Amino acid sequence: MTSAALLTDRYELTMLEAALADGTAHRRCVFEVFTRRLPAGRRYGVVAGTGRVLERLADFTFGADELEWLARERVVGDATLEYLAAYRFGGSMVGYAEGEAFFPQSPLLVVEGTFAEAVVLETLVLSILNYDSAVASAASRMTSAAVDRPCLEMGSRRAHEEAAVAAARAAVVAGFAGTSNLEAGRRYGLPTIGTAAHAYTLLHDDEESAFASQVATLGTGTTLLVDTYDVRRGVERALAAAGTSLGAVRLDSGDLGVLAHEVRAQLDAAGARATQIVVTSDLDEHAIASLAVAPVDSYGVGTSVVTGSGAPTCGMVYKLVAREGRSGALEPVAKASTSKTSVGGRKSAGRRLGPDGRATEELLVVGPDDAVRAWEPGDGVRALHVPLVADGVVDERWAGAAGVDAARLRHRTSRDELPRGARRLSADEAAVPTGTLRVG
Amino acid sequence: MTSAALLTDRYELTMLEAALADGTAHRRCVFEVFTRRLPAGRRYGVVAGTGRVLERLADFTFGADELEWLARERVVGDATLEYLAAYRFGGSMVGYAEGEAFFPQSPLLVVEGTFAEAVVLETLVLSILNYDSAVASAASRMTSAAVDRPCLEMGSRRAHEEAAVAAARAAVVAGFAGTSNLEAGRRYGLPTIGTAAHAYTLLHDDEESAFASQVATLGTGTTLLVDTYDVRRGVERALAAAGTSLGAVRLDSGDLGVLAHEVRAQLDAAGARATQIVVTSDLDEHAIASLAVAPVDSYGVGTSVVTGSGAPTCGMVYKLVAREGRSGALEPVAKASTSKTSVGGRKSAGRRLGPDGRATEELLVVGPDDAVRAWEPGDGVRALHVPLVADGVVDERWAGAAGVDAARLRHRTSRDELPRGARRLSADEAAVPTGTLRVG
Repeated sequence: MTSAALLTDRYELTMLEAALADGTAHRRCVFEVFTRRLPAGRRYGVVAGTGRVLERLADFTFGADELEWLARERVVGDATLEYLAAYRFGGSMVGYAEGEAFFPQSPLLVVEGTFAEAVVLETLVLSILNYDSAVASAASRMTSAAVDRPCLEMGSRRAHEEAAVAAARAAVVAGFAGTSNLEAGRRYGLPTIGTAAHAYTLLHDDEESAFASQVATLGTGTTLLVDTYDVRRGVERALAAAGTSLGAVRLDSGDLGVLAHEVRAQLDAAGARATQIVVTSDLDEHAIASLAVAPVDSYGVGTSVVTGSGAPTCGMVYKLVAREGRSGALEPVAKASTSKTSVGGRKSAGRRLGPDGRATEELLVVGPDDAVRAWEPGDGVRALHVPLVADGVVDERWAGAAGVDAARLRHRTSRDELPRGARRLSADEAAVPTGTLRVG
Repeated sequence: MTSAALLTDRYELTMLEAALADGTAHRRCVFEVFTRRLPAGRRYGVVAGTGRVLERLADFTFGADELEWLARERVVGDATLEYLAAYRFGGSMVGYAEGEAFFPQSPLLVVEGTFAEAVVLETLVLSILNYDSAVASAASRMTSAAVDRPCLEMGSRRAHEEAAVAAARAAVVAGFAGTSNLEAGRRYGLPTIGTAAHAYTLLHDDEESAFASQVATLGTGTTLLVDTYDVRRGVERALAAAGTSLGAVRLDSGDLGVLAHEVRAQLDAAGARATQIVVTSDLDEHAIASLAVAPVDSYGVGTSVVTGSGAPTCGMVYKLVAREGRSGALEPVAKASTSKTSVGGRKSAGRRLGPDGRATEELLVVGPDDAVRAWEPGDGVRALHVPLVADGVVDERWAGAAGVDAARLRHRTSRDELPRGARRLSADEAAVPTGTLRVG
């Protein structure tokens, strides 16, 4: 990886420049990441990207190339360049475990350090969490709608090429079974899938020779795309090429519900009862739900998952909520004017659970450092913050392929804990209310 | 840059594997990139990302790491690995110049080469063009609505961290004056902007000391963010800190139209007639248009531009339209079943212009290779395809910082050539119809 340090808004460095000059750059600060609201109609969000934040922290260093460019463009002066040359994040982060459900105001990530070391991370942290969480939040609705049928992520071509890798990862966090994206497979150990496109059939002189060639190389267990010309004849030819041990057929156009019934009947009549039906073609959570009664075995999802199904970003912000004052103590701070207000002070968070083990409230506790204690067993509240970075040292459990596995498990558990209605697709309020408790 | 070769859907390589085995991999092929429709209500799209496609072609090579992973995961076998180890795109590409307006069916990019060399580029080419063009298409509406006032791209935090760099570039192609994204500044020579966030004010003991500190370091020409507490008092304090030579104030919340009038009056009354007003806060093309009568000097745009303002991807596809048959001649091919049909055959494209020099038709010419000739002067048609890659050699005019400059100019000219109504924001059909002419 090249340096991540310039994946940053210019104002982070100009603020740093001015704060280094007046000494406030070294004040201890607490920044929190949260979102003011969920996308219209959504009942919960899903945190994703936390592992990627931790991975990219290691790349967030200003090398000779970055420093030279900043100097040449006069973005900052010599004192700031000197600070940046030595920059390593040495502060701490706690946050919601990746995969956790969240609600408006949930303090998803709490970053503590000097102003200087924490402010420069704002842009990168938000870029990662906003995009990855948008994908995971949409993907979770899709895997909910699909119930036990696998969802496969195939949207790489509809997202920026690197966003596509992150989208594959976020979709898997939210329960997708695999991805078409090879780089995501390599980087995070995700299962990759895919066999052939219409171009493969069109390349050949006819559908028969295309199918025969594909089966000859990829085996009878492959998936044949049967809708290039006529679906019924496509299925006939697929069976002629592979026999009844054909792995699957894929339908990528037309009225998928109707076609799936027809194709299932045709396959069954031919004795290909184990041959599966994969459907693709602009599916989203609503299309998946509408196919629940169709004889479909898995869903390939593209555009809608990589673009957050109508909500391509989460609107998360990174706000200063407390900073060291003249006395040396941490003091809560918050913007006070007309709109976009926030609650000052460092927060911890817990999910209050009812007697049935299901969530009833997102509880934020605001207060001075020593009043914010860990939740005790018996409180009926599950603590939501886990340590992610301690004095600059990343907790590696949350990074890499292991982090994806942990996040996937966390998501499953967290979603199962939501109130029964939370997984409905119809527009509604946040599944649980957020309450704030001031202590100390 | 690391290898781009695995930013690819698995099926590109499994198709390659099967086509290498049966010999069709070496058939000469023509693939075309086009979109079937514009987003609902949009009147034109803007091609962006072409320069990035050309830049990343150089990275599209399978190194030892990529080959080892593909072998270990058994994605493909030895013959394919051998082919990939030697892979360099040796074919040709022509396409719409970056920045050009486009319409449904416009053949934005035409890739010609063997099936093997062209098919593996599908995912990367579409990822880049779909995202970058979505951003440029939205950005063009914003710069249209802003008329002569500069638009500044500030949306990095609301997009994947690398998508943010591409978004900044695409916004500038469509007329944005600068970006907050430092990496985009470094990579493409774009002007970067930004001074301070609310956190800077909150870091200090009071607004007075924050402003005094910012002016001391960044000079009186800086932009002071005046809405952390109370806007009226913020402006008073800004003038107290910087005097009437203050560069600008920024408003980031509240009713921007009303506030802009109040702040302008306050600045003028204090003699700060040259102090500008920058507005930010979830602006999109409609908000910009509604601020046309407000005394605003520039617009900072975030979320809406990096997410394509409701259309985060373009839906472009990469379709095989012709391939060498048994005879050795190129034959048109097209999918024929229920939906998603396309027009087979290699196409050239021109924009027919009326006597006033404005576009009246997007004209596609389909026919055998030798029938598709360049347009002659006097035809009243401007040819749209420019050469991009010839026998694997990239035309460097379209890449790097020079490519962005060329695209920016091309966009301005292309947009000025659209029919008068094309820049209206209200929902309507494509600004010109697409016609198809078969020759030969």
